[in-house]
Amino acid sequence: MIKGLRISTTNCGIKYKNRDDLLLVTFDEPANVAGVFTQSSMPAAPVVWCKKNIAAGSAKALVVNAGNANAFTGKAGEETVLKTAQSVVAGINCKESEVFISSTGVIGETLNAQLITSAIPQMLQKFDDSEACWDKASRAIMTTDTKPKLIKKICKIGEQKIELIGFAKGSGMIAPNMATMLGYIFTDADISSKILQILLSEITQKTFNSITVDSDQSTNDSVLLFATKAAKNAEVFDADDAKLVEFKKALHELALGLAKMIVIDGEGAKKLIEVEVAGAQSEIQAKEVAFAIANSPLVKTAIAGCDPNWGRIVMAVGKSCSETSPEKIVVKIGDFILTENGAKHPNYVEKDVHEYLKNSEVKISVSLGIGDSNAVVWTCDLNEEYIKINKDYRS
Amino acid sequence: MIKGLRISTTNCGIKYKNRDDLLLVTFDEPANVAGVFTQSSMPAAPVVWCKKNIAAGSAKALVVNAGNANAFTGKAGEETVLKTAQSVVAGINCKESEVFISSTGVIGETLNAQLITSAIPQMLQKFDDSEACWDKASRAIMTTDTKPKLIKKICKIGEQKIELIGFAKGSGMIAPNMATMLGYIFTDADISSKILQILLSEITQKTFNSITVDSDQSTNDSVLLFATKAAKNAEVFDADDAKLVEFKKALHELALGLAKMIVIDGEGAKKLIEVEVAGAQSEIQAKEVAFAIANSPLVKTAIAGCDPNWGRIVMAVGKSCSETSPEKIVVKIGDFILTENGAKHPNYVEKDVHEYLKNSEVKISVSLGIGDSNAVVWTCDLNEEYIKINKDYRS
Repeated sequence: MIKGLRISTTNCGIKYKNRDDLLLVTFDEPANVAGVFTQSSMPAAPVVWCKKNIAAGSAKALVVNAGNANAFTGKAGEETVLKTAQSVVAGINCKESEVFISSTGVIGETLNAQLITSAIPQMLQKFDDSEACWDKASRAIMTTDTKPKLIKKICKIGEQKIELIGFAKGSGMIAPNMATMLGYIFTDADISSKILQILLSEITQKTFNSITVDSDQSTNDSVLLFATKAAKNAEVFDADDAKLVEFKKALHELALGLAKMIVIDGEGAKKLIEVEVAGAQSEIQAKEVAFAIANSPLVKTAIAGCDPNWGRIVMAVGKSCSETSPEKIVVKIGDFILTENGAKHPNYVEKDVHEYLKNSEVKISVSLGIGDSNAVVWTCDLNEEYIKINKDYRS
Repeated sequence: MIKGLRISTTNCGIKYKNRDDLLLVTFDEPANVAGVFTQSSMPAAPVVWCKKNIAAGSAKALVVNAGNANAFTGKAGEETVLKTAQSVVAGINCKESEVFISSTGVIGETLNAQLITSAIPQMLQKFDDSEACWDKASRAIMTTDTKPKLIKKICKIGEQKIELIGFAKGSGMIAPNMATMLGYIFTDADISSKILQILLSEITQKTFNSITVDSDQSTNDSVLLFATKAAKNAEVFDADDAKLVEFKKALHELALGLAKMIVIDGEGAKKLIEVEVAGAQSEIQAKEVAFAIANSPLVKTAIAGCDPNWGRIVMAVGKSCSETSPEKIVVKIGDFILTENGAKHPNYVEKDVHEYLKNSEVKISVSLGIGDSNAVVWTCDLNEEYIKINKDYRS
């Protein structure tokens, strides 16, 4: 258990029956907090709220509901956020701006504030202090997720043992630029909110912002990193402080682990696909090509069918990078080299690669042959189930 | 029949059985020709060939094969193109550079030149001069298409009656920037290749480059416009010549008709979706947002399910346009207004829109509320069949 915080979950009746749909976390002392948010120009009301309050860097509570995104809900949506914050303030001693709020679910439906505000007082009386509370928390924020996504890490800052626990949700509408998901990471470390923000922003680029399920970016999604300071570690002076080496590694592994869990739980997904693009002129270019491959429905359906249809990988490179040419690129699936000098590699044996693609984790590598930069992104295969899940008329 | 050209089709055994897979068109006199091509940096060998020869503006023949794209095939691919051209030159009196060549089918497999070169001499002996030759031509270039795509138009230049006939293929790997398809348009008009190129480039932007099935751009695709000059119309001096008004309209309608036929034949598609974005700061911005909506798998699956899940439209606007905001946009499906002042419109009745979405042609309109420019693009819904078609292991 992370010292300095308490967790409560309940069903408040927004959408789901027989499962919790509301999460409350409170901090005994104001926690330091950092956040990254959707880049959508249609941010949900709770995202607007969090963006406004994140700069102050202080959190006394977190409220997350599932089943309604409170996005594109106008004035009513803003009021629901305010009333939610006020209901927490009424129960614990803090400012409205210290209550962080997220919502996830359907867009454009009014979220009835009373469902939340009438549940909060009871939740404030009924915290779960067992280790099981983390599992409950990770389940209370799920929507179309088929599995909860929860990771724990331990590391040291100086001589002090530090805990990190993070959980996330996300399955569809998953694409980069922090528009992808909800993620919450808690630590007992004593690190300033300014340093937390630097660490979170850096790590997000190579983890949460390097995954895609369907190229669609949501209006809601956010990752928040809270530090309760309860571990009373030695003072950390800046983001490059040598004492943070282990913490950064743990935070990176935790964020990457959650990001991969989101991809592998992508709607209808059966395989995790790692796409590495090397030999690029810049990291931005490498990531752009990697995402062109990772977002191509033709590549993703081929992998679903274990079909080494590498022409589709070449197609995706061709559409996303005008600087390279057929003779320069090398395409690999797993350890198999597929292309050379602008044509199929002479040693390529299709059935070997077909066998390899039956694995649940597969790797596509492309070298662009025009530079030294690289990037890695993760996606999933595209199956009929994705269509079924998203086509069904909401009821 | 367009005067001044002859058509022959045959099965040369590249991939398909029991259907023609090779098309030959020859021009009695050198035709004026214009072309637009894929912007992929991985262009197929025949695209490289055509791009090199289009500037001269003179065509004596067109050869198109289906079943193999001759893309990413290295030196062997270039040789196949050259041998194809030489086999035509051996039969008719022309330069190699006057033979235009296209291929469509799987990427990365060597295309056996002999299959084509041994068929050409017989084809040159066996032209089909009946009106049915156009239907045969449009069928010989099909791959995963379920229907041939053929349109005829008649117009006037001055007092002279002019014919236009065009056909196209394309079903998957369809996205803008002329990387989408093969299209061939023939006319008996006497218009210089320079003017033809201006007309074709202009019209392509609002037709072939305004459609998407799956956001994927192919390595091969091309639209060529041939003018046999046989109509002997009054001289046309430039692209703005008043005599061209009817011709431009006919060409635009023909190209748009073929483009829509491609979309509605999109792999697994059941509905044609027109997406109009207005109130934008520029046409480029309007088209970008329109394509973000048209390429969103979540929007496309919702339409497949007749689900007016307009939050996904808002999501697509939010991810593609940072200049607007919820209060500014208006979203319509058909004539139903869905949003107002950043929230659901008070008169919106979901079941009415659900009923509307059962139509085979549906329209989504968005006003961004930040300018006067607009753009229209066309796409199709996304169904399980798209996945099935593209997932099946090639055999």
